[in-house]
Amino acid sequence: QNGAASWYGSGHRTANGERFNPNGMTAAHRSLPFGTRVRVENKQTGRSVVVRINDRGPFVRGRIIDLSRGSARALGMGGTSYVSLHVID
Amino acid sequence: QNGAASWYGSGHRTANGERFNPNGMTAAHRSLPFGTRVRVENKQTGRSVVVRINDRGPFVRGRIIDLSRGSARALGMGGTSYVSLHVID
Repeated sequence: QNGAASWYGSGHRTANGERFNPNGMTAAHRSLPFGTRVRVENKQTGRSVVVRINDRGPFVRGRIIDLSRGSARALGMGGTSYVSLHVID
Repeated sequence: QNGAASWYGSGHRTANGERFNPNGMTAAHRSLPFGTRVRVENKQTGRSVVVRINDRGPFVRGRIIDLSRGSARALGMGGTSYVSLHVID
């Protein structure tokens, strides 16, 4: 299955009743059974990580998985970017 | 000024006393006066955005600006990534 992954860092309980741990290696998927382990490969960075499905989502068209912040970090998603700053007079 | 930009999406009040709006085009800088408008260019995406400094930070070595979530989105930072999924038996 190929498609877009998003990530989330807040929440209280996951759909399977666990306390949400933003730093855990977990993810939300619409249909895979809870407890399924999935290898997620980031096509942009080439990194991959194994996550455990413990939540339901993403409920946004065109996205196939919603990763915890920890999973997303391990994949090199959403980190820092190199920028230049110019003060405007 | 060139360097790494990070972003943040939560908080209550900014250092200048405003209510933090994650969707606003604002940023935290260590020394520029509050109210300064800065053009931030993302060297990776080529996109740029003008932000208003209303907070102090980032307090992490090697980072020069901490953008609101809205500013980061406008620069193409931290969105979705294209992934492939493989269920592990």
